[in-house]
Amino acid sequence: MQRELNEECAVVGIFGHKEASKLAYFSLHSLQHRGQEAAGISSSDGKKLRIIKDRGLVTRVFNEQKLETLTGSSAIGHTRYSTAGDDSILDAQPVFARYDLGEMAIVHNGNLTNAQTIRKKLIDKGAIFQTFMDTENLIHLIAKSDERKLLARIIDGIKKIEGAYSLVFLSRTKMFAMRDPHGFRPLSLGRVGDGYVVSSETCAFDLIGAKFIRDVKPGELLIFEEGKAPRSIELFKPTPKHCIFEYVYFARPDSNIFGKNVYQMRKNMGRELAKEQPVEADMIIPVPDGGIPAALGYSQESGIPFEMGIMRNHYIGRTFIEPTQEMRDLKVKMKLSPIEELIKGKRLIVIDDSIVRGTTSRRIIRMLKEAGAAEVHMRISSPPTTDPCYYGVDTPDKNKLIAANMSADEIAHFIEADSLSYLSNEGLLRSVDGEEATYCTACFTGDYIIDSE
Amino acid sequence: MQRELNEECAVVGIFGHKEASKLAYFSLHSLQHRGQEAAGISSSDGKKLRIIKDRGLVTRVFNEQKLETLTGSSAIGHTRYSTAGDDSILDAQPVFARYDLGEMAIVHNGNLTNAQTIRKKLIDKGAIFQTFMDTENLIHLIAKSDERKLLARIIDGIKKIEGAYSLVFLSRTKMFAMRDPHGFRPLSLGRVGDGYVVSSETCAFDLIGAKFIRDVKPGELLIFEEGKAPRSIELFKPTPKHCIFEYVYFARPDSNIFGKNVYQMRKNMGRELAKEQPVEADMIIPVPDGGIPAALGYSQESGIPFEMGIMRNHYIGRTFIEPTQEMRDLKVKMKLSPIEELIKGKRLIVIDDSIVRGTTSRRIIRMLKEAGAAEVHMRISSPPTTDPCYYGVDTPDKNKLIAANMSADEIAHFIEADSLSYLSNEGLLRSVDGEEATYCTACFTGDYIIDSE
Amino acid sequence: MQRELNEECAVVGIFGHKEASKLAYFSLHSLQHRGQEAAGISSSDGKKLRIIKDRGLVTRVFNEQKLETLTGSSAIGHTRYSTAGDDSILDAQPVFARYDLGEMAIVHNGNLTNAQTIRKKLIDKGAIFQTFMDTENLIHLIAKSDERKLLARIIDGIKKIEGAYSLVFLSRTKMFAMRDPHGFRPLSLGRVGDGYVVSSETCAFDLIGAKFIRDVKPGELLIFEEGKAPRSIELFKPTPKHCIFEYVYFARPDSNIFGKNVYQMRKNMGRELAKEQPVEADMIIPVPDGGIPAALGYSQESGIPFEMGIMRNHYIGRTFIEPTQEMRDLKVKMKLSPIEELIKGKRLIVIDDSIVRGTTSRRIIRMLKEAGAAEVHMRISSPPTTDPCYYGVDTPDKNKLIAANMSADEIAHFIEADSLSYLSNEGLLRSVDGEEATYCTACFTGDYIIDSE
Amino acid sequence: MQRELNEECAVVGIFGHKEASKLAYFSLHSLQHRGQEAAGISSSDGKKLRIIKDRGLVTRVFNEQKLETLTGSSAIGHTRYSTAGDDSILDAQPVFARYDLGEMAIVHNGNLTNAQTIRKKLIDKGAIFQTFMDTENLIHLIAKSDERKLLARIIDGIKKIEGAYSLVFLSRTKMFAMRDPHGFRPLSLGRVGDGYVVSSETCAFDLIGAKFIRDVKPGELLIFEEGKAPRSIELFKPTPKHCIFEYVYFARPDSNIFGKNVYQMRKNMGRELAKEQPVEADMIIPVPDGGIPAALGYSQESGIPFEMGIMRNHYIGRTFIEPTQEMRDLKVKMKLSPIEELIKGKRLIVIDDSIVRGTTSRRIIRMLKEAGAAEVHMRISSPPTTDPCYYGVDTPDKNKLIAANMSADEIAHFIEADSLSYLSNEGLLRSVDGEEATYCTACFTGDYIIDSE
Repeated sequence: MQRELNEECAVVGIFGHKEASKLAYFSLHSLQHRGQEAAGISSSDGKKLRIIKDRGLVTRVFNEQKLETLTGSSAIGHTRYSTAGDDSILDAQPVFARYDLGEMAIVHNGNLTNAQTIRKKLIDKGAIFQTFMDTENLIHLIAKSDERKLLARIIDGIKKIEGAYSLVFLSRTKMFAMRDPHGFRPLSLGRVGDGYVVSSETCAFDLIGAKFIRDVKPGELLIFEEGKAPRSIELFKPTPKHCIFEYVYFARPDSNIFGKNVYQMRKNMGRELAKEQPVEADMIIPVPDGGIPAALGYSQESGIPFEMGIMRNHYIGRTFIEPTQEMRDLKVKMKLSPIEELIKGKRLIVIDDSIVRGTTSRRIIRMLKEAGAAEVHMRISSPPTTDPCYYGVDTPDKNKLIAANMSADEIAHFIEADSLSYLSNEGLLRSVDGEEATYCTACFTGDYIIDSE
Repeated sequence: MQRELNEECAVVGIFGHKEASKLAYFSLHSLQHRGQEAAGISSSDGKKLRIIKDRGLVTRVFNEQKLETLTGSSAIGHTRYSTAGDDSILDAQPVFARYDLGEMAIVHNGNLTNAQTIRKKLIDKGAIFQTFMDTENLIHLIAKSDERKLLARIIDGIKKIEGAYSLVFLSRTKMFAMRDPHGFRPLSLGRVGDGYVVSSETCAFDLIGAKFIRDVKPGELLIFEEGKAPRSIELFKPTPKHCIFEYVYFARPDSNIFGKNVYQMRKNMGRELAKEQPVEADMIIPVPDGGIPAALGYSQESGIPFEMGIMRNHYIGRTFIEPTQEMRDLKVKMKLSPIEELIKGKRLIVIDDSIVRGTTSRRIIRMLKEAGAAEVHMRISSPPTTDPCYYGVDTPDKNKLIAANMSADEIAHFIEADSLSYLSNEGLLRSVDGEEATYCTACFTGDYIIDSE
Repeated sequence: MQRELNEECAVVGIFGHKEASKLAYFSLHSLQHRGQEAAGISSSDGKKLRIIKDRGLVTRVFNEQKLETLTGSSAIGHTRYSTAGDDSILDAQPVFARYDLGEMAIVHNGNLTNAQTIRKKLIDKGAIFQTFMDTENLIHLIAKSDERKLLARIIDGIKKIEGAYSLVFLSRTKMFAMRDPHGFRPLSLGRVGDGYVVSSETCAFDLIGAKFIRDVKPGELLIFEEGKAPRSIELFKPTPKHCIFEYVYFARPDSNIFGKNVYQMRKNMGRELAKEQPVEADMIIPVPDGGIPAALGYSQESGIPFEMGIMRNHYIGRTFIEPTQEMRDLKVKMKLSPIEELIKGKRLIVIDDSIVRGTTSRRIIRMLKEAGAAEVHMRISSPPTTDPCYYGVDTPDKNKLIAANMSADEIAHFIEADSLSYLSNEGLLRSVDGEEATYCTACFTGDYIIDSE
Repeated sequence: MQRELNEECAVVGIFGHKEASKLAYFSLHSLQHRGQEAAGISSSDGKKLRIIKDRGLVTRVFNEQKLETLTGSSAIGHTRYSTAGDDSILDAQPVFARYDLGEMAIVHNGNLTNAQTIRKKLIDKGAIFQTFMDTENLIHLIAKSDERKLLARIIDGIKKIEGAYSLVFLSRTKMFAMRDPHGFRPLSLGRVGDGYVVSSETCAFDLIGAKFIRDVKPGELLIFEEGKAPRSIELFKPTPKHCIFEYVYFARPDSNIFGKNVYQMRKNMGRELAKEQPVEADMIIPVPDGGIPAALGYSQESGIPFEMGIMRNHYIGRTFIEPTQEMRDLKVKMKLSPIEELIKGKRLIVIDDSIVRGTTSRRIIRMLKEAGAAEVHMRISSPPTTDPCYYGVDTPDKNKLIAANMSADEIAHFIEADSLSYLSNEGLLRSVDGEEATYCTACFTGDYIIDSE
């Protein structure tokens, strides 16, 4: 799928490393696929928190000089997708506040399902909100808690929120990492030099030379203090409901999340898909880059050769030039090009990870047919996306999700495919070697663990 | 003086005009001299507030497309000088918040002297502060007030604050303008089309085609509602303490503030200075552009001819190229150039509005002497700047104010002038036809009306 | 290979289409892989030539407004790699000149081997050269030709030059396309709407909706005039010496050049490589993206599974932040990441298209070994690159070409591979179904057809 | 006058100083008023010439890093105004060429009146022209000269050109400076450190710490060689025809040109104007900044007080926002503001240096009348601008010069002034203490020394 769905963000925290903000920077760089619209880092030197955040890619927001102002041995960072709003700068993270215990910064990946209720209560009591971010709730809850110590207040605050959250808090001298009891979003712990790192995905560890220790557990709160090993508190009994869509689409293939490698899970999906939805064809073609691992799995299982029949163009940039009348489907053709000589007269199985609105799939299939494909059989390495996500994915409204409104056959007709099949939910669970009980599959099944407001 | 002191900001409010945000934009453009580091506008269409703010000059922050998103017939705007901080975007105004009565935006020119105390109290009660701006206090006070109606709450909030403030509030359907009881900072009311405008200086009226009505009175709250004339409430008995430094330096010469024209006040200062501090010389030369009106006054009073002996270069830009060893005082020479042929062998009276640190004055005098001036008599059209400002001017610490640490003779020696004299405080008051009682002259006298924290 | 070699450019020409400059723009966009440092378009409306060229990617150099100024129904374009010189703007193309017959613009892909000699002769006769580009020679030759008609002069000029050239000329009313007698660089002819297009690669045709007609023949001059079919002149008898490195590395896999599809030629190279250089292993891994087709060929031939064991990061941007001491091989790791779980303990065959200096290969292999690879067998889908190119590729000096200075075993040791083998020259020729006689393989064999100066 | 006329350029040359390119940079900075659209520097280290040129202000084109690449102890520079063309980069200077004697760079201020004829001849002989600049002719003439030595060729070339030129040539080891026999454009010689500088205006000397030696004489060629004092050749007998408009408008007031100080010449014009065109009034007001010195002269002569009744805004920037219907004459009002309180009810004499089209004058007068001026008497410190310039000023066509088409009374009516008078040509000559014979006054009289093509 050509990035039509957007994760809301990625988080990272570094503790006990003299180049904390630099490590946060590089970590964010490798988490860039989880959000390209804004980035920020807050650091502490033990006395004062500093923060820089702005719109744009990580490399645009920071430079050596700016990073040097973010002094201190602890730092937290965030990269986000943000809906085009009036005031998107304000909605960048970290969220920073001065309150009665001093200064605090928070980064958050996920979505709070009771955010509106909490916000209303807080506002009724005289709180003001300066952003649209859920995360602002949490700062209020901590600031207004009756507890005296920060740890007690954080616990107090967290107990009031519901939904999906992988959080990192930074105070002047401590760092805290917390994952919701369902563990919707990934969060892993690693060691870098003599310090520690927590990150939404392990791919950040590889870049910064960190060693993976373990995942932060669902419901676990980790406390980082100078000169001590991280302390763990089981704040909630873990009841895992990992977002299976992280495996399908979001996470980078070289990351290990929820204990398994993403690339291999995707290959498994392709293998299962080949078993469930075989079709005679001359070659398997992935929609790059998302569909590649599943296409390899499908190919290895079916014995039908894998070919990179669609090439991805790396010099896209932004062009605002109107096409001429000879030029059709410009948008997709500037990104993707078929290898005409390869596919001409051939029966193709095209593998993609998901279909959201169906329009991009249609453009791709048309392009393949124009290039001479005899047949195009679309195979999707996940079940039909029928329901919106309330846990941190920016899905369109249900009425725009094609699979919520059409049968597979109708969709096949709409996207002009000769056939279309999806992986079953069972097949998906088999692929990740999991049980329904431990994964959230709500976007495919509508079974929400927690009701959204 | 070459802009060494910085006003913290300018405010503007437009009510009841279909192009409100555009008028706010142009108004800010003419108030740009009061703050060049950030700018913002918030507008309301009756249902929703929108806001755009960012670092940079007004022309950089806004374009036609952005202004078009700021729909509605009311708008408030702000332009500010901000100290280079960690997070200067967050400290741009308007300050915007959602609270129990809906949405609100505030712009503020001035400085609250009890900001720390209020902030501490608010924080003790669980409030969080996301910026370093005084203005955030006021939003909290309004949000937490026990009153039920917005007007009552604004009054409640304002009664708790002390110091210098010219404020404009925007709610979905109303606009409020308020000036502190001392009227430290200017704020004027005008009519534009069928609507109204309030602005820190009247020069904004001229650009947008507005007609001056009157100044907002010290202690007055103005309420703007659709279809009604502005309603006035005398919230405090006026006890004027207008910032006399607005006349000396800040305000634009074409503005009328505190009931008088700035250019003419500056000319008067020059006249008084000529009476108080005469000296034989061949010509009067202003340090451009600030010293021009006073130099004209001095010339007209003394009969010594006025000459533009120092030229100001308009293509300064930013250059980071290191000079060669032949090149001295590059920084001042790129901005200012003496007319050597004119001043060679001549005895000069050089007029400037003030001396802060003395280093720029020294560079200018050296430059004039190198150009052949026989004598340089420095005359300053205000008294020695001996004390910092707590009402909205970003003065350096007292130990950096040269006049707080040296006598006029010592300063003359330091800046390499043949003589140096200042206008007396009495002379300054005579120039503006005022009495000590109605002006704040704390930066010259140390007599603060309200103690700073 | 991670783009270490650079083609000097790509050319395009559009004739007889009312949106000529727009079509040139989109064509250049799809030819961007052949040069990213400068781009330019010149158009003619029958009376006057216009030109815009600048440094940077095509999308940076042009926008809608600029394209609109390039009026007329014919246009030629160029995108180039340029060595960082004193004056790189001047060395962008098209080269434009006014001369006795009016105005002319030229674009050139290739390298003239007698450029120095011609330049010297021209200079001796009083010509001045304002750029470092070979192409400037040609304009001089045409301007100074004794012939009276432009066509005769172009022929006269071309007869004097030697080396590699795919040229497009634009005069006020005509367009000319010419390919050197050896056909070193590709150049194809297509039809777009009622007009014509010539382009360095056919991938441009696909984007702009053009139909491929045929390749411009080696030694052929095509003349485009309004209202006529293109006229062909066999200026030289064709003696094909196509650059085989276009197949190996330069051209886009979806292009057909020299009559064949690039992707398939690369797959063939992989197949041949598998036959010539088999090795026991658990999986085949390409260095993305260049090595993918050959890796697929190797896999299909050998039966060893293909895996995308190295992931390419699409959010590279430019970062100038120094790494910390924990971070090794940052440069390659920001671009490429191994799928650790996949390759751990495995014996890998890593496929790349070529090795230039060896340093990138070493970084990649180290990265794979750190990720746990048991063995890394490097297989290169072309022969050792032992000799510089004089026909338009910016190869480093011979002393920097690792294969010119070390045996395969020595290179294997240097790059820390368990083994290293190359495809033989014969194998390469077999892959492209060609004979030595019709290809230039000088970079592998040192057999130059034409002596360089 | 608000910069409606544009000089084509400024030139500078530095010889024998180890920081030559840096000195050229700063010199161009102080010559920026003579051209803001492009800038360039070429330097020589004795072996090789290097060049950087681009669109934009000097500070935009260069930075420390770029200047460092311009090594060597000699450098020439140029800043230019360029008409918005297709290809304005190419038309930046220095013009650089390789030719039979090596490398050469030229900068040129002025306009060649026989450029078309020369160009035609050169083109007929096979030369090609890559730019629209006159200067390209000269390089051709030098390259094609039959002389063997560079000096002889330069002389040969110069003897063929006619018109206005202040030229600086740079070869690998020498620098040459040349001024046309009439000395239309200024060019001065100075000493900087152990080296030499030539510059269009002396204001550059002041910034870089150079000492003025003398003007380059009309018709003089200066040759700079290492280790020698500059050698002078009287190539033509001097027949001075200095551009009197340099005094009126172009040159910086702190420059001395043609042997006299610009500021003082402008004051003299004001004095003469007061004598010739007295009028009863309450105050004299200059149109800033150009009109200031003449207004001072008028005031000193007439005894009527000088006031800065129009303020110039320094934060103009570029705004593309459409005004509202309340806002009139936005363009002029964003730059200039009247001091309403000062001028209300007053009879004003407004001094400007010239009137080109009349539209700006009209806007200014309207603005003053709206601000309450009782009478506005426009006095121009030069004669009516009736004829275009062929010697380097970009004047509009004669039919757009208001004074070529209307009498003074008609113009007064058009610009809505109560009266309008100009300085007479005799008065202007008296002001500069000159005779008609030694000045070019063609723009006022139509008496061209050399016929334009």
